[in-house]
Amino acid sequence: MAQPHTSRFRTVGDGSGIERSDNFTREEVALALRNRGMPLEGLRYPITPSGMHYLLVHFDIPRVDAAAYRLRVGGLVEHEISLSLDEIKARPAVTMPVTMECAGNGRALMTPRPISQPWMGEAIGTAEWTGTPLAPLLHEAGLRPESTEIVFTGADRGVQDDSVHLYQRSLTVAEATREEVLLAYAMNGQPLEPQHGFPLRLIVPGWYGMTNVKWLTSIEAIDHEFSGYQQAEAYRYQTESGEPGEPVTFIQPRALMAPPGIPDFLTRTRLVEAGRVTLSGRAWAGREQVTRVEVSTDGGETWSDAALEAQVGEFAWRGWSFEWDAKPGSYELSVRASCATGASQPDEMWNLQGMGNNARQRIEVVVEERPA
Amino acid sequence: MAQPHTSRFRTVGDGSGIERSDNFTREEVALALRNRGMPLEGLRYPITPSGMHYLLVHFDIPRVDAAAYRLRVGGLVEHEISLSLDEIKARPAVTMPVTMECAGNGRALMTPRPISQPWMGEAIGTAEWTGTPLAPLLHEAGLRPESTEIVFTGADRGVQDDSVHLYQRSLTVAEATREEVLLAYAMNGQPLEPQHGFPLRLIVPGWYGMTNVKWLTSIEAIDHEFSGYQQAEAYRYQTESGEPGEPVTFIQPRALMAPPGIPDFLTRTRLVEAGRVTLSGRAWAGREQVTRVEVSTDGGETWSDAALEAQVGEFAWRGWSFEWDAKPGSYELSVRASCATGASQPDEMWNLQGMGNNARQRIEVVVEERPA
Repeated sequence: MAQPHTSRFRTVGDGSGIERSDNFTREEVALALRNRGMPLEGLRYPITPSGMHYLLVHFDIPRVDAAAYRLRVGGLVEHEISLSLDEIKARPAVTMPVTMECAGNGRALMTPRPISQPWMGEAIGTAEWTGTPLAPLLHEAGLRPESTEIVFTGADRGVQDDSVHLYQRSLTVAEATREEVLLAYAMNGQPLEPQHGFPLRLIVPGWYGMTNVKWLTSIEAIDHEFSGYQQAEAYRYQTESGEPGEPVTFIQPRALMAPPGIPDFLTRTRLVEAGRVTLSGRAWAGREQVTRVEVSTDGGETWSDAALEAQVGEFAWRGWSFEWDAKPGSYELSVRASCATGASQPDEMWNLQGMGNNARQRIEVVVEERPA
Repeated sequence: MAQPHTSRFRTVGDGSGIERSDNFTREEVALALRNRGMPLEGLRYPITPSGMHYLLVHFDIPRVDAAAYRLRVGGLVEHEISLSLDEIKARPAVTMPVTMECAGNGRALMTPRPISQPWMGEAIGTAEWTGTPLAPLLHEAGLRPESTEIVFTGADRGVQDDSVHLYQRSLTVAEATREEVLLAYAMNGQPLEPQHGFPLRLIVPGWYGMTNVKWLTSIEAIDHEFSGYQQAEAYRYQTESGEPGEPVTFIQPRALMAPPGIPDFLTRTRLVEAGRVTLSGRAWAGREQVTRVEVSTDGGETWSDAALEAQVGEFAWRGWSFEWDAKPGSYELSVRASCATGASQPDEMWNLQGMGNNARQRIEVVVEERPA
């Protein structure tokens, strides 16, 4: 509603110290309206309902005619292969839960803010993907010895930085032939919906979302470093424009909390009733295992270990929970994950494209004896 | 990406005259990330794929245990009724396509901009809802003669303008007992996903989205005007704060175009190849029939009639199309619908809460001989 908020929930322009300095542009908002985050109460589900899963679509969602559809496997192979959707579905099938996250997740929390899809942490989801492993198909095609990379091409086409292109990404042969890499045609037991890549998409567990090419039409073996826009220009860890930077690859550790209590509509500040509150959420780290989740109820001053559940799958998140004795007052809740490699979550980070920002989540909470 | 755009697509801060005056707040963006619009290429589908349908959730998506679920029908009735989900599903079932639209659709295009969910026109969708008609259930309960309104209560609870409440809306007895009003448990042939109201929601064809109460737990007959927050404070056509205003009710006429050509990632400006281009989209008007759709390719100076398809259903949109001979240059495409009552779409409009803004859509297009 249009009325300014007062009282317990701070908002911009109310004199509480929050500045209207965010200055999000119309273009960022238009992207946020097209793409979708997972509302964080969705963390309660081990498998995200399909319509709640995050979604990023670079260009338009293409319409692909399933009856006319062919997947082409070519390039530096002994035998070019062309398969219909039915032929792909007739191959050996695997179903696997995979936690997927957008590489730009958390971008809008960086200062200064890189201008693109303005994710604040909700670009995640875990689905059960069903498909056929890619490696046997590449072996049947017969990769020539000089092959070094596999290029995946989607049916989606558009313009980015004045480059008109189909969406394309590559993987090294070693990565592309790992056994968990799938050509997926079903999500949570149903055919892919158009926005998730119908009729076929790539699933590369452990890698950020951009790797999981949707509306896949072509797989091509090459003998050089792929230099397409979405590989060589986009999805780089850069600190300055013009420098090549490092490629964005694996999902970094992150824990998220399902915000407790009830929300204020506009500010999403949480109102919690005093007493014992179970805080809970999920944590993941791409190919790595999350070995520790810590919770802070004092804005990151002190941390306590959360209890961990089993991983939902080898490449899927695990639940965590923490009992909090909530007393009346205002709090910043926070949570952070770390994994066996020692990698954890920073308080903040920045890079030019807003990639891989796994800075810890912060949730504003107001605790009252009897909220009304 | 972080690099500033130049050349053919205008963007903020590039000297092209677009000012960074939009100044969207972090709160608006956070709402846009939780809620979701239908990407407008979704206009190609007569029935919107479930995961592409627009979604607005005021508070949090509640978790409802289907096994323990009961719908209570009470208040001023002769016989209070309590039904399990299975009992509701065992009643006579109807499946109906319904075009649903958020009352706040287009809010963010108003000047000055009311601060709330910042829709720009994409808060729409058409689903096939399956459920049991409400009227026979009310008749079985036996509405007492003094009943004037029916109050619908959802399981979602939160704070808005410092009012802590469950989401509730009312309808007059005459509106609630119309034959098309359904208690729906399936969307596009599948059980409702949590975010669309699992296990049961109200469907009131022709009314804006706020009427279609999700996670429905209680139906109560009363003998006075319901004064809950979401009825008496929110969803009002107001011009000044504090005035009661008029209630927001039926969906107003609107036509939308699926943007032609291919998009620029950030600005979403469209790049179109010169030649004959079929422009198409859909139009709707709540309970009314759209009788005319007009297209302008010169920013609203001149208008031409589009060809109309049949309505997808009595309460669902109809397709339209228009052949455009696109010559190189920059264009603002626009479309507007009108219906038998004479109601049409304005060039712009404004009210305090940003309700019912059916101002005509505008799409920026760059036509080139051979885009590359």
